[in-house]
Amino acid sequence: MKKEAFEDSQLFKIRHSCEHVFAQAVTELFPGKVKLAVAHISEDGWSNDARWDIKLSDEDLPKIEAKMKEIIAADLPIVKKIVSYEEAKAIFKDNPFKLEWLEEIAAADKEVSLYYTGESYADLCKGPHVESTGEIGAFKLLSVGGAYWRGSEENEMLTRVYGTAFASQQELDDYLKRMEEAQLRDHRKVGKDLDLFVFSDVVGKGLPLWTPKGSTIRRELERYIVDEELRRGYLHVYTPDIAKLELYQKSGHYPYYKDSMYAPIEIDDERFMLRPMTCPHHFEYYLSKPRSYKELPMRIAELAKLYRYEKSGELSGLMRVRSFCLADAHIVCTKEQAQEMINEVLELIKAVAETFGLKEGEHYSYRLSLGDRSDDKKYFKDDESWEYGESVLRRVLEARKAPFYEAEGEAAFYGPKIDIQMKNVLGKEDTAFTVQYDFVMPKRFKLNYINEESKEEEAIVIHRSSIGAIERVMAFLIEHFAGAFPVWLHPEQVRIIPIGLDQQEYAKSVVDSLKASLPGIRVSVDDSSNTLNKRILEAQQEKVPYMIVIGKQEVANGTVNVRLRNGQSLGEISVNDLAERVKEKIQSKALDL
Amino acid sequence: MKKEAFEDSQLFKIRHSCEHVFAQAVTELFPGKVKLAVAHISEDGWSNDARWDIKLSDEDLPKIEAKMKEIIAADLPIVKKIVSYEEAKAIFKDNPFKLEWLEEIAAADKEVSLYYTGESYADLCKGPHVESTGEIGAFKLLSVGGAYWRGSEENEMLTRVYGTAFASQQELDDYLKRMEEAQLRDHRKVGKDLDLFVFSDVVGKGLPLWTPKGSTIRRELERYIVDEELRRGYLHVYTPDIAKLELYQKSGHYPYYKDSMYAPIEIDDERFMLRPMTCPHHFEYYLSKPRSYKELPMRIAELAKLYRYEKSGELSGLMRVRSFCLADAHIVCTKEQAQEMINEVLELIKAVAETFGLKEGEHYSYRLSLGDRSDDKKYFKDDESWEYGESVLRRVLEARKAPFYEAEGEAAFYGPKIDIQMKNVLGKEDTAFTVQYDFVMPKRFKLNYINEESKEEEAIVIHRSSIGAIERVMAFLIEHFAGAFPVWLHPEQVRIIPIGLDQQEYAKSVVDSLKASLPGIRVSVDDSSNTLNKRILEAQQEKVPYMIVIGKQEVANGTVNVRLRNGQSLGEISVNDLAERVKEKIQSKALDL
Repeated sequence: MKKEAFEDSQLFKIRHSCEHVFAQAVTELFPGKVKLAVAHISEDGWSNDARWDIKLSDEDLPKIEAKMKEIIAADLPIVKKIVSYEEAKAIFKDNPFKLEWLEEIAAADKEVSLYYTGESYADLCKGPHVESTGEIGAFKLLSVGGAYWRGSEENEMLTRVYGTAFASQQELDDYLKRMEEAQLRDHRKVGKDLDLFVFSDVVGKGLPLWTPKGSTIRRELERYIVDEELRRGYLHVYTPDIAKLELYQKSGHYPYYKDSMYAPIEIDDERFMLRPMTCPHHFEYYLSKPRSYKELPMRIAELAKLYRYEKSGELSGLMRVRSFCLADAHIVCTKEQAQEMINEVLELIKAVAETFGLKEGEHYSYRLSLGDRSDDKKYFKDDESWEYGESVLRRVLEARKAPFYEAEGEAAFYGPKIDIQMKNVLGKEDTAFTVQYDFVMPKRFKLNYINEESKEEEAIVIHRSSIGAIERVMAFLIEHFAGAFPVWLHPEQVRIIPIGLDQQEYAKSVVDSLKASLPGIRVSVDDSSNTLNKRILEAQQEKVPYMIVIGKQEVANGTVNVRLRNGQSLGEISVNDLAERVKEKIQSKALDL
Repeated sequence: MKKEAFEDSQLFKIRHSCEHVFAQAVTELFPGKVKLAVAHISEDGWSNDARWDIKLSDEDLPKIEAKMKEIIAADLPIVKKIVSYEEAKAIFKDNPFKLEWLEEIAAADKEVSLYYTGESYADLCKGPHVESTGEIGAFKLLSVGGAYWRGSEENEMLTRVYGTAFASQQELDDYLKRMEEAQLRDHRKVGKDLDLFVFSDVVGKGLPLWTPKGSTIRRELERYIVDEELRRGYLHVYTPDIAKLELYQKSGHYPYYKDSMYAPIEIDDERFMLRPMTCPHHFEYYLSKPRSYKELPMRIAELAKLYRYEKSGELSGLMRVRSFCLADAHIVCTKEQAQEMINEVLELIKAVAETFGLKEGEHYSYRLSLGDRSDDKKYFKDDESWEYGESVLRRVLEARKAPFYEAEGEAAFYGPKIDIQMKNVLGKEDTAFTVQYDFVMPKRFKLNYINEESKEEEAIVIHRSSIGAIERVMAFLIEHFAGAFPVWLHPEQVRIIPIGLDQQEYAKSVVDSLKASLPGIRVSVDDSSNTLNKRILEAQQEKVPYMIVIGKQEVANGTVNVRLRNGQSLGEISVNDLAERVKEKIQSKALDL
């Protein structure tokens, strides 16, 4: 089962045509002032890059939208026309960008196609489009930004207008609502509002500093995943974040993966690299003594800091960083153990996802990424091993009745893999991390073991994560929970707000009791001089799970009045009952309060 | 109170004279075959480097010792004699090393002093010495090795003989016993025997790979120290291991600390450094928003990976590595809070040390390292701040009645410090880590806060560790416990040994019960085909705290028969009682079983 290509869909045509309508509208509204350069159609909408001789701002968009609505209402036919290179050159004689395109088309000896909207307006375009502007449905102009011509910083900066279009107003409204929701949940925004991480120019781009609050969540995540893996028989190790260049030559990452690696550091005539991968480190540990079949499967795991080059323009919050911490593992096992091991890995991934309330099929699914036997350059040549590996992965997915589709040509050089495809709050699917079947590295590193007949045999390796990179999972969870983290993850589990000075002492005694019943509980008192309302509002904004406002009555009764983050109240209960409740929620990693 | 300089001690003279006796003995035993080059006297003994025309081995040592004893028994006077440069040149005409020394002495226009042992034997030497060979007491030749002339790899390799000497036979015997014990406890040996860490040539020198067992201990140590610090109000953060060169220029580490740093890594025209220090990272976090006096003291802590250059020849096990993980913290506070903060830090250090059974005064003491007001180059010029900082540190130590001595000229550039001086198993004192008072970095970084009068004021910073670098503390603890780690730290807490096949199922049920009562307990079953005796021996060698041998009787009674690592037996008890006991020992971090 393959996914339908977006480029073939009706939605693509609608958006593409909508972008033409936009171009026509601005050409008519601002004659001679706009030189259209290029358009992009995406799963979110479309964008148009052009040189504007006037200053365009968000305020101009309604006027343009009105004009576009006129063109759509006129239901103009959109018609393709093949013209000669010379004809096209005459039509676009005032547009340097189109002339540049035309030269390339001519050089490649391709046909020149125009799309006419109505009689008078035409654009240089490959299509495809809807048949007439009336089919466009509903659209909206979203924002104005900038972009370099052809994406290069050396070229002119153009004005980029973002818009989107859908077949119906309902679909557009739903999308806009999701967008608005996503912006509120954007991990960069929430991360700032909740003070979870910061950046410093002098430390460097793509290198987050986790604040104490963000670090609390990270620590809980790290301990959780390590403990969960230990419980399942993983052997956690610590290996160095730098190693000799030689190690990556041995693994083949260097020079093949060189562009993603940072430059070597010279130490005493030797060159060291910031590691981009954990695998060769784990293999060196495996090789530190002879291994017997009795030791297999050996599940070597690490919370590993990795370093990969990202262009500064592509860095974004915690999603795209230059150094990240991967919950990584390499399972060295026999070929025969592979199927059980992969099933075990998917079992772990499912359990971890469920802890965060993520459901298979709904929030994530699987992609079986296969090799291409005919492509010896991209894929290590060993048909038999490919067949075996692919069939093992497929069998596991089928036996689990897991939702998956197959994608040819998406495998790694050294073997097929299962990609865990996670949906973000916008419903957009992205590979969160992978489970890979590897029969090449065991050859390169001689990852052998002594079998039951006392003979040396080659192992296979399963590369996998269970939760992905801590930075990315953090970004994902911030957006997934919109900052309202479950009790076990929240940096502050209980906040106590004494109404006045008379309740401060009691507030502190409640803290002491809670800490005595539940060491490690994260509880604080807000006895600042702010008004009661302001203090309550702040606790709500910070999405503290349990808020306790203490007045005369609670002091007199020796109780607490607990309000949940979701607005519910637990009423007046004993401190002990609260401690028991919080303890249960933490230990079970409950999603509710 | 200052320590007596070792060079002025009687012990130094004894060893120095013993080395002369050695030189005289080999000159007489192997005439013309040995060209003496240089000697070193240390707190462990002495060494002698020479060019040997014959092959010297450990087996030759008794013969030399016999000759030395003769010379000592003769009680020859050791007498200093000043000679002219020409006289000395004639005496040492056949020794190129001494001639090289002599030229340097002549060039520096210093007097040439010889020490005569008896009438005929003389060496070029500054002294001091005992008055006659009879004073030497007891000595021993230890081993034969090699060393480059003047320590340079470009020079000739000489033969080095190690020896030691003491005032009495009793002291020598005690020393040799301690040495033997230390060798058995050497963390490199125990680390290998217990499979705690390994090295890989292709990963690189000074970059340990922690095995699953070693990693278990490390993880327990890390979690312990983080939790202990959190409980005491520290704010743990995660900051990047690399940062722009600019950050270290801002802090002044670059170029002043350049020799200890690795070369920059270029990324998109910017230069990044592996961090040698955490401080500037924490300061950047502090600066991420304006701070109020209400936020102080702010205890910013991190388990921070640091990178410092060490020559490959100086790398040793986990003690000297190229990358290490420091339990680091920076307390930003007002000048008035400094005393309380430093006291709090010493309190934490004491608590941590006690957890490992280390006692103040016995295992460790303090050194108050002071600046020198007249040395503006080595110390930042600000007499008043120095006075204040030093008096704060001294007051804390005095108020605590802590064992300490003062050492002038040992302070950091930016302020005075308290060094935690830890004794190793040989009784040798070394600085484990420090608590530093810093009034310079707050100026460089503008670490200010808004005080109660709404005015901006400069903070001060206390740099500190609580346990030191994880690598070093691990090396220390391996030697301290000789591998017999307390229950909470040991990689394997309980080992179950079923006598035969009939007991295997019951053994597994015991594992399940223990895990159910105590999640995270580290328990394993040794049901290998080895003999019972061999399996028991292995558990003992690996210093597993609790060993359970299961025979018919235990299966019948549903009990376990528990033997402790120290040989004691708990007799036959219920699985539940064992779980309770282990749980209590783990939770209290008990040193006993």
